[in-house]
Amino acid sequence: MDHQSNGTLETAGKVIRCKAAICRSPGQPLVIEEIEVDPPQAWEVRIKILCTSLCHSDVTFWKINAGPASVFPRIFGHEAVGMVESAGENVEEVKEGDIVVPVFLPNCKECRDCKSKKSNNCSVFKYNKYSLNMPRDQSSRFRDMKGEVVHHFFSVSSFAQYTVVDVANVVKISQDLPLDKACLLSCGVSTGVGAAWKVAEVEEGSTVAIFGLGSVGLAVAEGAKLRGASKIIGVDLNPKKFEIGKNFGVTDYVNPATIDGKSVSEVIKDLTDGGADYCFECIGLASLMQDAFSSCREGWGQTVILGMEMHGSPLSVNSYEILRGKTVTGSMLGGVKPKIDIPILARKYLDKELNLDGFITHELSFRDINKAFDLLLEGDSLRSIIWMDK
Amino acid sequence: MDHQSNGTLETAGKVIRCKAAICRSPGQPLVIEEIEVDPPQAWEVRIKILCTSLCHSDVTFWKINAGPASVFPRIFGHEAVGMVESAGENVEEVKEGDIVVPVFLPNCKECRDCKSKKSNNCSVFKYNKYSLNMPRDQSSRFRDMKGEVVHHFFSVSSFAQYTVVDVANVVKISQDLPLDKACLLSCGVSTGVGAAWKVAEVEEGSTVAIFGLGSVGLAVAEGAKLRGASKIIGVDLNPKKFEIGKNFGVTDYVNPATIDGKSVSEVIKDLTDGGADYCFECIGLASLMQDAFSSCREGWGQTVILGMEMHGSPLSVNSYEILRGKTVTGSMLGGVKPKIDIPILARKYLDKELNLDGFITHELSFRDINKAFDLLLEGDSLRSIIWMDK
Repeated sequence: MDHQSNGTLETAGKVIRCKAAICRSPGQPLVIEEIEVDPPQAWEVRIKILCTSLCHSDVTFWKINAGPASVFPRIFGHEAVGMVESAGENVEEVKEGDIVVPVFLPNCKECRDCKSKKSNNCSVFKYNKYSLNMPRDQSSRFRDMKGEVVHHFFSVSSFAQYTVVDVANVVKISQDLPLDKACLLSCGVSTGVGAAWKVAEVEEGSTVAIFGLGSVGLAVAEGAKLRGASKIIGVDLNPKKFEIGKNFGVTDYVNPATIDGKSVSEVIKDLTDGGADYCFECIGLASLMQDAFSSCREGWGQTVILGMEMHGSPLSVNSYEILRGKTVTGSMLGGVKPKIDIPILARKYLDKELNLDGFITHELSFRDINKAFDLLLEGDSLRSIIWMDK
Repeated sequence: MDHQSNGTLETAGKVIRCKAAICRSPGQPLVIEEIEVDPPQAWEVRIKILCTSLCHSDVTFWKINAGPASVFPRIFGHEAVGMVESAGENVEEVKEGDIVVPVFLPNCKECRDCKSKKSNNCSVFKYNKYSLNMPRDQSSRFRDMKGEVVHHFFSVSSFAQYTVVDVANVVKISQDLPLDKACLLSCGVSTGVGAAWKVAEVEEGSTVAIFGLGSVGLAVAEGAKLRGASKIIGVDLNPKKFEIGKNFGVTDYVNPATIDGKSVSEVIKDLTDGGADYCFECIGLASLMQDAFSSCREGWGQTVILGMEMHGSPLSVNSYEILRGKTVTGSMLGGVKPKIDIPILARKYLDKELNLDGFITHELSFRDINKAFDLLLEGDSLRSIIWMDK
């Protein structure tokens, strides 16, 4: 099967042979190989990936060399947009030819969590960071040319020309949205904008501190700016990030490496008359979570955890400061309910309310996918859009 | 000056000699002695205490035998009701003869926190658990018969027939409210009811777990019942507490000592189909705070810290569970703004919405004040009302 196919009924029900960037061992460059992709089973959708991008969580898991999360060979990638090639039985929500964004966080629409305004943590198809394969039967739809199983990642595996995703992990979006912008809404940018908008509900005139100015952190800034925050402080060790941050609404910059004798929280307290109203941790380091907690004001200061702690360390905070009215909260995907909120964010982009253009710093061909890793690790990129057919 | 005086203009401006229960060394029985109480200075009120009660925080500080909080001689007590004997310059809010509840948490009514709906953490007169004396000038209004300074406690010091309190720490209440019920609203009961009502905003049909069934925990149950919670689980090592708890709305009981092989959080998850919507920690132990956090559901589970950690230990939680939508928050006095909310709670009692009667298990004369400590330490009392003139 030619991977250039647009995905039509002629491929439906058949195994598709196409290219995928496989990770065969931790931290090693991906290898582009031929794979076989099974047809979608009931409640599944096979998607022709049109473009994908690299998120820090891919890099985190790509590096893990021990424990239950260290499983290879595997196809990474969970930020993408694609076209439905075929849908399995019982799938009514999307059909061949629809443009969809696959999302790591499931959204069954029927469970108590999906029906509640307070949660985006689907309790039927619980997102599980250790999940290796399809959510319903735990089996893989990928094989390499030796017949060996290749594992899925985060229920998406978008570093392949075709992938199979559960319908709970698929969001149909408007054909009007440019593909590269749609790709951004699949994870990082939705997480940051959502955190400011839905988790913290940042208010007009409030002060915000953002720990880590990658795409998620900058999307928090963008979201906070949209909500009318009066001061948006970016904390990052990379001084280039402040200039970049200005485009997303960052008004002040703290570089922890150049504040002799003061702690980050002291600097932020000085800038905000006692502490920021909202602090966002966007890296996934317990020590930074503590800094964020220390930097928020008593009375109503909220610390929002967005980063997945990369060493599994617990978050340790002074319980007396909690008694003084501080709150710690967090969310996957910034509280965004994929099927409801991603189309809303797309509409905001089309209405020119939401800036997505600035997140795309590089465009690459699929064959150069390893360069996206280099760019992200060197801190030189926000999002590299990887085009599958180039 | 006879301590039986009702507090009239004849005493105003003069030193009053009266009786106080002084703690001269940590953990030792209080000694009833004569003291001199200075007239109130500007923005201060001298109050004739009518009755007082013993709260666990008094006991916690009474025991501390090292560090900045270990200061003696001192007059404990911070749950009380009294009559204004005289008011200093600039005091317009109350006058001689008014019935007032002194409250440890200041409420200036003018600062950003006092004006915000989101905070009860007055930022002008910040409550400081280490404060020894009056909040404006840090000096004491008490002396013993040798002329030695006797220190204040929590800005109230109600274990004395007369005390001096800043106007920021005084709430005027309706003369219709029975004095013993007014006394309860000064701290513990307001904390518990407020936490369910204002901090968690418990919703109809929700599930609640309460760690520690003292007066604060039982008041959480009372508040959760008022808000329509469908299941209220009490966790306590003292099996007597379940029968008592039923009167306040507790529907299920977990005794950590008698759940072989299971953790408290496992039992609570079984009782609530995956975790309680709201967990309240009412003791002040980091390990119990962790149990509360583990017992709340993903998606929107909220852990509310009400106990002051008695060993100063940090709260350590799994940050990944926070990403799954759990929140940790907390508050002094259950988020209650003393001058606005205590009169509302008084009204709810008078309208027979709020049960206060069940909290009073004992009544004592002032001369028997040490018995209140014994009763609380033995777990046999909720609140002992100590009448100053009996």
